[in-house]
Amino acid sequence: MRGAVIHGKGDVRFEERPAPTIQHPTDAVIKMSATCVCGSDLWTYRGIATVKEPTPFGHEYCGIVEEVGSAVRSVKRGQFVIGSFFASDNTCPHCRAGYQTSCQHRELVAGAQAPRLRVPLADGTLVATPDLPPDDLIPSLLALSDVMGTGWFGAEAADVKPGKTVAVVGDGAVGLLAVLSARQMGAGRVIVMSRRETRQKLARTYGATDIVPERGDDAVARIMDLTEGVGADSVVECVGTQESMMQAIKSTRPGGSIGYVGVPHGVSLDGQDLFFRHVRLHGGPAPVRRFLPQLIDLVWNRKIDPGKVFDLTLPLAEVAEGYRAMDTRRAIKTLLRP
Amino acid sequence: MRGAVIHGKGDVRFEERPAPTIQHPTDAVIKMSATCVCGSDLWTYRGIATVKEPTPFGHEYCGIVEEVGSAVRSVKRGQFVIGSFFASDNTCPHCRAGYQTSCQHRELVAGAQAPRLRVPLADGTLVATPDLPPDDLIPSLLALSDVMGTGWFGAEAADVKPGKTVAVVGDGAVGLLAVLSARQMGAGRVIVMSRRETRQKLARTYGATDIVPERGDDAVARIMDLTEGVGADSVVECVGTQESMMQAIKSTRPGGSIGYVGVPHGVSLDGQDLFFRHVRLHGGPAPVRRFLPQLIDLVWNRKIDPGKVFDLTLPLAEVAEGYRAMDTRRAIKTLLRP
Repeated sequence: MRGAVIHGKGDVRFEERPAPTIQHPTDAVIKMSATCVCGSDLWTYRGIATVKEPTPFGHEYCGIVEEVGSAVRSVKRGQFVIGSFFASDNTCPHCRAGYQTSCQHRELVAGAQAPRLRVPLADGTLVATPDLPPDDLIPSLLALSDVMGTGWFGAEAADVKPGKTVAVVGDGAVGLLAVLSARQMGAGRVIVMSRRETRQKLARTYGATDIVPERGDDAVARIMDLTEGVGADSVVECVGTQESMMQAIKSTRPGGSIGYVGVPHGVSLDGQDLFFRHVRLHGGPAPVRRFLPQLIDLVWNRKIDPGKVFDLTLPLAEVAEGYRAMDTRRAIKTLLRP
Repeated sequence: MRGAVIHGKGDVRFEERPAPTIQHPTDAVIKMSATCVCGSDLWTYRGIATVKEPTPFGHEYCGIVEEVGSAVRSVKRGQFVIGSFFASDNTCPHCRAGYQTSCQHRELVAGAQAPRLRVPLADGTLVATPDLPPDDLIPSLLALSDVMGTGWFGAEAADVKPGKTVAVVGDGAVGLLAVLSARQMGAGRVIVMSRRETRQKLARTYGATDIVPERGDDAVARIMDLTEGVGADSVVECVGTQESMMQAIKSTRPGGSIGYVGVPHGVSLDGQDLFFRHVRLHGGPAPVRRFLPQLIDLVWNRKIDPGKVFDLTLPLAEVAEGYRAMDTRRAIKTLLRP
């Protein structure tokens, strides 16, 4: 089969790879219905995270189970399933606490930009939809594999509560879905920091009440203006740079919470500054698995439509163009159809 | 009157100072019943925090109201009162959210190691006891001015819940009172990191179930042993160094919480490390004022005895010896009687 492989900075190729097979009794192999390009992959694409050897790329997936190992019990051939970028057993103490991305037996799922994918720990990782989905639901179901769950975790980690004021740093797919999540959790006011019109528009669709186009300390000043000098109750950080992290921290009221889900790159926090700001910090790789049943239900019943973040759809063979479009910000997020 | 003044590293003098008077209609002047030496003052005493000019020292206090300004309504002459090291109006948005140490009008209360003290924003800052206290309750009531409230906030910030496993880094007065607090909040297991016998003993009295004498990564390894490789649910950090902070972070399970109340000195946190550890961080100057009514009630009804942390009592005139005893760790905490 042919799939995406990253060779180095800016160099994603669609090339021949061995087709996946069952390697452990707990594996499943799925036939991909749709996959996509993740903002977190851009760190690698841009050469900020290094590539040691050609590596199968992509970690978001949904599709039909083709084959399961002899130990798999909870999913079966023919079901439509969604899983997370970290496979998890869903039984260890960390999984039971709801932190499946810190599973004691976690395995990174890599190489999802391909027609077929091996998913380890299938019982703990994959969640089936109630039935085979209609085609128009596929983008929203695919979004649950990472970005929607990540935006949801960011809002939850930021302790979003009914009626509260929420600020979102970052207008990528995760930021936009953090807006949607905050609204679902009953936030009274959702301020999104965005300077691009198409993203501002989608943010409004998802329930943003205020748009802040400024950046850095100017953005912080605007948040303070909007909150009568108090700061936001909850801030979701969806970028991962020093600037965006400080923007999030400074926008939060004392006793407020920051949920950070942008993978931090070169971020360093001063302990004493954090101490006197009195803020609460929680983040990490989103335990998407925890949220899958609830989010599948919301998508299935058409209560949320996270698939709107895909504003470019390409055949899988054009994966390289999918990265280029996101790298240059021509697209918010690229969906790839095998 | 004569009171404590710090002139520089290791140089605390008991010398003539102007007696405090009402300067604003919201002030009160109290006659000190007891004051003490705080571990956080040792940063200054040891020359790690610098002294620009001779500065009245001490910020923990309790005593009898002698005089109030014309605007003061909630406390009156003759009452026994306790207050926090930050005066607060207790009406601004930060105070109403329970973060009085981030009050929009906060003022540092300094110079408490003296026979009399001016307390700004008396209505928002001081809380009176139900009656004049018996003499044997005074140490425990004094502890509420800072250390007990700080240990309590640490445990609360670390999200201590009934039945949970709690670890405490630091066996100073705050650490010991974090043990007491965690027990009051129903913790199932309280592990304290301590290598000094008198402190271990007091920790046991306060409800510690396990003692870890190791430090740094060895201490972390012991915590992991004690929790079957999972880590503690809640960790209270009561020191403020890079080593103690990392010890706290590494001892926490994914999804667990660190409450940090040791004032960080030279502490820097790596964003990506924190991200992948999946921990929750909250801390800062303890909003003691929030807890005062509840903690006064617990002391008044002899449910808790935080005053046991005072293992040295000196006349106020011997304040310099009080600092020396704490600096060399001969005393856990020094109480000073005017």
